[in-house]
Amino acid sequence: MKELPVVGWQEGLVYMLDQRILPREEKILTFQSAAQVAQAITSMVIRGAPAIGCAAAFGVAVEAYRLAKQEGVPLSWSQALEPGLTLLRHSRPTAINLSWALDRMAPLISTTDPVQLPERLLQEAQLIHAEDVASCRSMGRFGAEILPQVRGRSLVVMTHCNAGALATAGYGTALGVIRAAWEKDNNLQVIATETRPFWQGARLTAWELLRDGIATTLITDSMSGYLMSQGNIDAVVVGADRVAANGDVANKIGTYMHAVLAYRHKIPFYVACPLSTIDLRAVDGQAIPIEERPTEEVTHCLGQRIAALGVGVRNPAFDVTPAQLVTALVTEKGVVENPDRQKIAKLFL
Amino acid sequence: MKELPVVGWQEGLVYMLDQRILPREEKILTFQSAAQVAQAITSMVIRGAPAIGCAAAFGVAVEAYRLAKQEGVPLSWSQALEPGLTLLRHSRPTAINLSWALDRMAPLISTTDPVQLPERLLQEAQLIHAEDVASCRSMGRFGAEILPQVRGRSLVVMTHCNAGALATAGYGTALGVIRAAWEKDNNLQVIATETRPFWQGARLTAWELLRDGIATTLITDSMSGYLMSQGNIDAVVVGADRVAANGDVANKIGTYMHAVLAYRHKIPFYVACPLSTIDLRAVDGQAIPIEERPTEEVTHCLGQRIAALGVGVRNPAFDVTPAQLVTALVTEKGVVENPDRQKIAKLFL
Repeated sequence: MKELPVVGWQEGLVYMLDQRILPREEKILTFQSAAQVAQAITSMVIRGAPAIGCAAAFGVAVEAYRLAKQEGVPLSWSQALEPGLTLLRHSRPTAINLSWALDRMAPLISTTDPVQLPERLLQEAQLIHAEDVASCRSMGRFGAEILPQVRGRSLVVMTHCNAGALATAGYGTALGVIRAAWEKDNNLQVIATETRPFWQGARLTAWELLRDGIATTLITDSMSGYLMSQGNIDAVVVGADRVAANGDVANKIGTYMHAVLAYRHKIPFYVACPLSTIDLRAVDGQAIPIEERPTEEVTHCLGQRIAALGVGVRNPAFDVTPAQLVTALVTEKGVVENPDRQKIAKLFL
Repeated sequence: MKELPVVGWQEGLVYMLDQRILPREEKILTFQSAAQVAQAITSMVIRGAPAIGCAAAFGVAVEAYRLAKQEGVPLSWSQALEPGLTLLRHSRPTAINLSWALDRMAPLISTTDPVQLPERLLQEAQLIHAEDVASCRSMGRFGAEILPQVRGRSLVVMTHCNAGALATAGYGTALGVIRAAWEKDNNLQVIATETRPFWQGARLTAWELLRDGIATTLITDSMSGYLMSQGNIDAVVVGADRVAANGDVANKIGTYMHAVLAYRHKIPFYVACPLSTIDLRAVDGQAIPIEERPTEEVTHCLGQRIAALGVGVRNPAFDVTPAQLVTALVTEKGVVENPDRQKIAKLFL
């Protein structure tokens, strides 16, 4: 695949590809503080659970460099980094990779030589980034093996939202599975749901798959059931923002709907998620906070109002798919069929 | 309710409220030939099965007036009107009201005094229009009686697309049921799905309900399942573009999906349809042609491209909901619970 500068570190700054304006414009933004990175996450310059985790990790590192440069090594790194960490931690509520990454960065603050802390934090962020790419590749290999086989025609895989290179450090979770399958056998087509209200499917998934030469067909979110009823979809692969200990999956709004339809039509429904997306502290899907985002995402499109004035709006950004509807979780440690509490706990042994 | 100039006859011309630009602009367009009316139907100046039927009927009348004015009474009205009738008949494929209305107009051509034909055709079109309003009112009364009762809070009814005054000669089918229920008891709220790709929910349903003072909340099409899972929806009411003899319902793409979700969550799913929408010649849903519309409706929004360049597109405008998922059909002759072939046949006795 062609590499994408999703999120990373360059010349002492955090950079991100601005996903809000893709594919019209490919623009790299840079950030020099935790507050700026947190704001970028909140406003969805970057989105996708693993990518958010990476961004937050780099956000901690850039904050430490900024403080050291402005004021020298602080008396207490813990106190100095506290406000930045808090902003990052609350920048978005649903994706667990955010707190997972911060929980991995935080212990270093008290255990590292204060002079070397900025460099150590950057090392760790780079490691999180590299591990994420490796785990996507691993998920891809495992996932490609379990996709259904079809004869005499292309395999058609549907995906919702963007769980691609753009949602991770690179390669993707759900799109990693699709990429790996396509690398094995090009006779594969993707159906991408446009994914209202933020258009991640129309803008991001279609763009990054076509960039790699993978045939992609766009549909509105409301068309999946019809295509399934016509036998036009062989499998569904999505990512996850948080998976509960019992296998319930919080993912982009609409995922639950596609899962219910896939179940009705006996189409396998796979969730690709690194272990960093599994939250053992969330007993089940009910324990996962669901973010409500600004109403303008629903009422407007490209800055122009579509909806009638005065209308109320709901804008939950995620929903919860019960584990019973998930054919398998695809993780970097292997495939978990019919996921449940015991099988998920075993992944962490 | 406040009357809307959806479609009608004024000063020798057919007029329609241009639904493509609502609610930004309220603009009345006029048409002076069958070809112009057919083009207006194809390009969705007007949409909604009953409204399309009315428009087609007026289209026949205006064509007769045009021909009589240009060339006097033709030797053969049948021959003279044939091209216009053909254009109208093929202007859109799924809504059966189109051919239903034309099948009602056509016999008049050979049985009416040639000199009086234009006036007679106009009378019939006006009658179709008036009957449609009356049947919407009747569906409203029947439907309002079967909506669930809730205590201590508002009844929340979800609707998809626009089956309102704008989709009919006035009052609406699904929104007729909602209006009648609201007129009985204002403690009612509507959830309108935005209805991609043409935004009938965001633009039309929200606009016409708010105009009547009915509280309306907008969601993307992908949110219905989540809201149902949270207990936020008490009933679903939609319209229909064509109902087969066995009760299968062709309606706006996404209807099937909402029906599957309502079934899973044991939420009643009602289809409001006048008898003119029931096609006894369609054995079941498989016999109903499903229109594929232009790709630009999916890739663009308000004239601006959203989707990545080069992406393929599917744009089926309708889907089929099996009768088994329909709690009841609401017609102007009464409610048909658990619709099947026998019960539907009885409506026509």
